[in-house]
Amino acid sequence: MSDLGIPGVLDLAGIFVFAVSGALAAVQKRLDVVGMVVLAEITALGGGILRDLVIGAVPPAAFTSVSYVLVPLGATVLVFFWHPQVTRIMPAVTMFDAAGLGLFCVTGAIKALDYRLSPLHAVLLGVITAVGGGILRDMLSGQIPGVLHDRQLYALPALVGAMVATLLWHSGLHGVVVSAGSALLAFGLRVAAVRWGWRTPRARGVRD
Amino acid sequence: MSDLGIPGVLDLAGIFVFAVSGALAAVQKRLDVVGMVVLAEITALGGGILRDLVIGAVPPAAFTSVSYVLVPLGATVLVFFWHPQVTRIMPAVTMFDAAGLGLFCVTGAIKALDYRLSPLHAVLLGVITAVGGGILRDMLSGQIPGVLHDRQLYALPALVGAMVATLLWHSGLHGVVVSAGSALLAFGLRVAAVRWGWRTPRARGVRD
Amino acid sequence: MSDLGIPGVLDLAGIFVFAVSGALAAVQKRLDVVGMVVLAEITALGGGILRDLVIGAVPPAAFTSVSYVLVPLGATVLVFFWHPQVTRIMPAVTMFDAAGLGLFCVTGAIKALDYRLSPLHAVLLGVITAVGGGILRDMLSGQIPGVLHDRQLYALPALVGAMVATLLWHSGLHGVVVSAGSALLAFGLRVAAVRWGWRTPRARGVRD
Repeated sequence: MSDLGIPGVLDLAGIFVFAVSGALAAVQKRLDVVGMVVLAEITALGGGILRDLVIGAVPPAAFTSVSYVLVPLGATVLVFFWHPQVTRIMPAVTMFDAAGLGLFCVTGAIKALDYRLSPLHAVLLGVITAVGGGILRDMLSGQIPGVLHDRQLYALPALVGAMVATLLWHSGLHGVVVSAGSALLAFGLRVAAVRWGWRTPRARGVRD
Repeated sequence: MSDLGIPGVLDLAGIFVFAVSGALAAVQKRLDVVGMVVLAEITALGGGILRDLVIGAVPPAAFTSVSYVLVPLGATVLVFFWHPQVTRIMPAVTMFDAAGLGLFCVTGAIKALDYRLSPLHAVLLGVITAVGGGILRDMLSGQIPGVLHDRQLYALPALVGAMVATLLWHSGLHGVVVSAGSALLAFGLRVAAVRWGWRTPRARGVRD
Repeated sequence: MSDLGIPGVLDLAGIFVFAVSGALAAVQKRLDVVGMVVLAEITALGGGILRDLVIGAVPPAAFTSVSYVLVPLGATVLVFFWHPQVTRIMPAVTMFDAAGLGLFCVTGAIKALDYRLSPLHAVLLGVITAVGGGILRDMLSGQIPGVLHDRQLYALPALVGAMVATLLWHSGLHGVVVSAGSALLAFGLRVAAVRWGWRTPRARGVRD
């Protein structure tokens, strides 16, 4: 659907939630409204732009429809006024980031499949689309990207979501409902990992 | 004019001033001559390369004419010998960076318009071209990008410059003089903001 | 040879050694296995992806053959089990990084020449391919990129290797043996610079 220049509903949902996570992160860093807009836009659009450049979708989707740019602006306005309602910001950033992770790992993988990339590369691009925005948001804020140091699984839920989405796509199962299901699975895995502290192993001999 | 492979005078001026800002930043960080060249080249060419990849201008302008690569080298040589004349480096970096900001927000927006992007996306790409090099320079130096924490308007003068340039372009006013005027406006706004400490608001409830 | 979608042996060798350097860096930062894979893949593929986007090779080579993605995975597995044999990790990272530097400055320059870029731009892209992965690895780990602060020549051996490879290519000398020779020269220069502490000058007046 994104090929028609009309952003899919899952695309816009992912852009919205990632923008909220970026704007909230800006508030937590005490940035001004410009910093909020910059972080919101980059977190929301960064992963998708990178994926589109790689698969040859030029201009990237973000530059074919004004919705891609306006939705993060709207998210910033919401956060600008609403953030005091959020008693603790970091858990909120994590929740919105998890939602974006789930949505983007699926839409990213499917777009790569539409562009005839191999299943392995589609899965990889799904993960890149999902974690790319968060990586840019963290690096711009001067932090080590969460995907690297966040011991609770971050890239793995995105990997599972992208793999499931790719499998279903290759089985002929397409459409918003199927995609939303895969996204929900990835989102759920990420939330569960945070809630119950699931960890991935370190190399032998590396102690805390 | 850049379509002919001949870099426009405003393009080269912007590349020169941004390269000076990058080389001066390298001196301030006590880097060696290689670090000066790397920061000069990346600050000067980074924003434009990103813009060109997005609009589909491949290879990016920086890779179509040797001037794009040699001008930052020349700027580095100048700074290598001349920098002791600059009693305080940071204000100099800010001045040269403001000049690059003004020039690039205009040339970036106009190139996007030449490539048929919408006015909104052209303005966005003008801002990206203007602030992209500085963001890369700051991140490579291990600092939070100025566009995020620099309370004196940084992206807003670039936004105004790109908007004015886009408006004039759509009104049929083209040419170096018109572009230089828009660039001067953006440069002036940035310098004024620094001089008089103009600030942008933070989200409600966020205190220093 | 990479045009056929079959990765050249020098390409894969460079990807392997850069992946080892990234995985070792992850171990040194006490990251988990996901962090090891991310750093290995990004260090191995980052420079090449950037070069391919610039020269218009889309999708980048990394996305045309699964070997590009699987070799860094294999390198990560090796490091995961084998790293305790390495008594001091940083010198090992430096060695593997130097090997990647040597290989990629040559393969990167040659690919740019195949795509009809000028000799100057081919040399520049050889350097970008060689240092790009290390820059990304360092930035993701929260460090100033070695190419900037590492006083022992880092970019210069890559520059020499790319220049020699370009000269030989323009003289009609092609093939794996010739390329391997240029790579060995760059690798040797980098190792010698580290071993004997060769330094590059700083701007006049800048003291340690």
